[in-house]
Amino acid sequence: MTDLIRSWVESANAETAEFPLNNLPYGVFARDGKPGRCCTAIGTHVLDLHGLEEAGVLDFGGTLRSGDWSAFMALGKPEWDRLRGWLLTALAEGAGAESTLSPHLQALSDVQLLMPFTVTEFTDFYASRHHASNVGRVLRGTNGEVPPNWLHIPIGYNGRASSVAVSGTDVRRPMGQLKAKDEAMPRFGPSERFDFELEFGAIVGQPSGGMIDVATAFDNIFGYVLLNDWSARDIQAWEFQPLGPFQSKAAATTISPWIVTAAALEPFRCAAAEREVPLLDYLQENGPMLYDVELEVALAPPSGEETVVTRSNYKHMYYSAAQQLTHHTTSGCPMRVGDLLGSGTISGPEKLSRGCMIELTWNGQEPVQLSSGETRAYIEDGDTVTIRGHAQGNGFRVGFGACSNRVVPSRG
Amino acid sequence: MTDLIRSWVESANAETAEFPLNNLPYGVFARDGKPGRCCTAIGTHVLDLHGLEEAGVLDFGGTLRSGDWSAFMALGKPEWDRLRGWLLTALAEGAGAESTLSPHLQALSDVQLLMPFTVTEFTDFYASRHHASNVGRVLRGTNGEVPPNWLHIPIGYNGRASSVAVSGTDVRRPMGQLKAKDEAMPRFGPSERFDFELEFGAIVGQPSGGMIDVATAFDNIFGYVLLNDWSARDIQAWEFQPLGPFQSKAAATTISPWIVTAAALEPFRCAAAEREVPLLDYLQENGPMLYDVELEVALAPPSGEETVVTRSNYKHMYYSAAQQLTHHTTSGCPMRVGDLLGSGTISGPEKLSRGCMIELTWNGQEPVQLSSGETRAYIEDGDTVTIRGHAQGNGFRVGFGACSNRVVPSRG
Repeated sequence: MTDLIRSWVESANAETAEFPLNNLPYGVFARDGKPGRCCTAIGTHVLDLHGLEEAGVLDFGGTLRSGDWSAFMALGKPEWDRLRGWLLTALAEGAGAESTLSPHLQALSDVQLLMPFTVTEFTDFYASRHHASNVGRVLRGTNGEVPPNWLHIPIGYNGRASSVAVSGTDVRRPMGQLKAKDEAMPRFGPSERFDFELEFGAIVGQPSGGMIDVATAFDNIFGYVLLNDWSARDIQAWEFQPLGPFQSKAAATTISPWIVTAAALEPFRCAAAEREVPLLDYLQENGPMLYDVELEVALAPPSGEETVVTRSNYKHMYYSAAQQLTHHTTSGCPMRVGDLLGSGTISGPEKLSRGCMIELTWNGQEPVQLSSGETRAYIEDGDTVTIRGHAQGNGFRVGFGACSNRVVPSRG
Repeated sequence: MTDLIRSWVESANAETAEFPLNNLPYGVFARDGKPGRCCTAIGTHVLDLHGLEEAGVLDFGGTLRSGDWSAFMALGKPEWDRLRGWLLTALAEGAGAESTLSPHLQALSDVQLLMPFTVTEFTDFYASRHHASNVGRVLRGTNGEVPPNWLHIPIGYNGRASSVAVSGTDVRRPMGQLKAKDEAMPRFGPSERFDFELEFGAIVGQPSGGMIDVATAFDNIFGYVLLNDWSARDIQAWEFQPLGPFQSKAAATTISPWIVTAAALEPFRCAAAEREVPLLDYLQENGPMLYDVELEVALAPPSGEETVVTRSNYKHMYYSAAQQLTHHTTSGCPMRVGDLLGSGTISGPEKLSRGCMIELTWNGQEPVQLSSGETRAYIEDGDTVTIRGHAQGNGFRVGFGACSNRVVPSRG
């Protein structure tokens, strides 16, 4: 595991800093309601890359002045490497670039963070063995076995890109058709079982027209965000047969504002669990394909402080983003810059590592205890759900920043 | 029913013309590999609206020079009405506009037709009672009953926008995971049960942020295209539980090149079948919400002439596009200009009005007889599938143009 790379931005060298020089995540900031500007984070600051390209210090064909990261992603991996290389040099301790760069630093606390890229399409997967097993138990009364195709296919479905929003955006409780098992007819009303889903989002940074080779699939992934795939369990239960979730997942999907690059996560690669049955050749992994990223979800009621309700890790997944992307292209499905792939709910093996309320509370039967003294079966209006994550290095961490969103009452 | 509106473009007045003055569909044409230009069709000609805006004859803020119809759609219904009104006047017999407009007419046979708009996201529904019933019988051995939610919810799922292509584009047979019931393990190979689906595509022309009222939902729909939702039945059967179709529907969805406007179809409105159970209030129809549009699918093997394999009608649907759009927004799901809503396979009550091969051949058990002497259980490489449709007026028709695509072998 690599050590901390020290920066002349002192706050980046703290052991618990989310944004040391090793990280260099990409985001978009704004001040005073002005248009968004591409930036990176270093310590407690953002470095205004839009401003650096404007000043002629950097030249990436104007893509850093385009308001989000989609145009830059389209340039491809050599340019991704060139920008990261430049930043690693210029921000390193002793680089002598302080006088050039300091005017372009701003305190993180002074800026607003916007959507970091344009989501072209959103696909959500279902890749945690523990999650699939728990959901089967709680909803279908199984003994924990997964669906017959699950050990062969990285199961996924198309989600809704228009409802992807950045951390900080209020999430409105959805209305929808609800029908409990003992009700004769459905009714229309606000979801009564509104849930979060702890996920990792992989961002496709290169277009493709044919099938991608799993051995090179990672070259197409620009980076990762934390992702909350908000889910109305009651709407889902009534609507999902036979064609899958639809309005239950369409109210919102929220993401953290920083794209942590694949390059920054490279030192934290780890292997997936052993295959229970052999995968078909096209999905055969070429090395350790997951990342050791510690994750947690905190829930804060309107009245009180937050309680961490689950701690999980991306390393618990059965399928990697490379395998998911490869499978996504088997049919010839074209991928475009800005395709967002949700990992699926990241549940670990322990009870307190489950990645959503339906698992944590066993569909509301065992409510979660909050430090405020309240309990929660599902998410209530006014609650704030915050996902945090970081990879732990040797005396430093690569952090993601928070994905934090408050639920507001439905319009119904 | 309205009568033919005569045009000074003589070919538009023929009884079987697809593009009389009553129609005025919107498309994008190109010649000699140049960029696409917005146009309408009149008789056997296209009228170059890009050229008319360039010449200052029309002024729609440059949207007619943007290369497709998305920017124009965003202007909203008053501008949609203004353009249609202008064209109805200028192209009418005796209008005296021949000298101005004739230089902007080109023979349809001389031009290539491109994608008429940018597909933002694609949603596919499942709204024919006969289709849902047949699919249950053939795949799940039911007695024709539909899923319990079907009579209450316009069932839909998110499809893949990146694979929507225009008529004329070759469709590559998808590869994918296949597993027959008697096979122990899945294998990877070309789909052996590749199917078409006869559908109607509704194009959302206005953005919305909250829930749309079913009474005004039609105001958000710009127009309609014929749509073929290509489906790999073997990939679908193995992958679709529990989260719905994914790669089985991602190889291609093809559409006809002309957007037939909601305004042109207005005289052909008709009521849906009686509700078998009452719908929830938010889906209650406000009047006749379907259109009487005759549809057919022809199949041409590489060796011979085409055979019409099914004749159906959009009036057979149980849910309208207005109901589907309304349901789509119940969760608060934002809709954007260019959202494409597939009606679902349009199967009628008769055997020869079924809208896909899995129904027509009962999953291959009763192959279709072609006029060439060949038979087809599913679509074979080199076959061309052509959807045609028109609304029949009093001595004229409002045609859609063909959605015609050839299947080429998989890359496997």
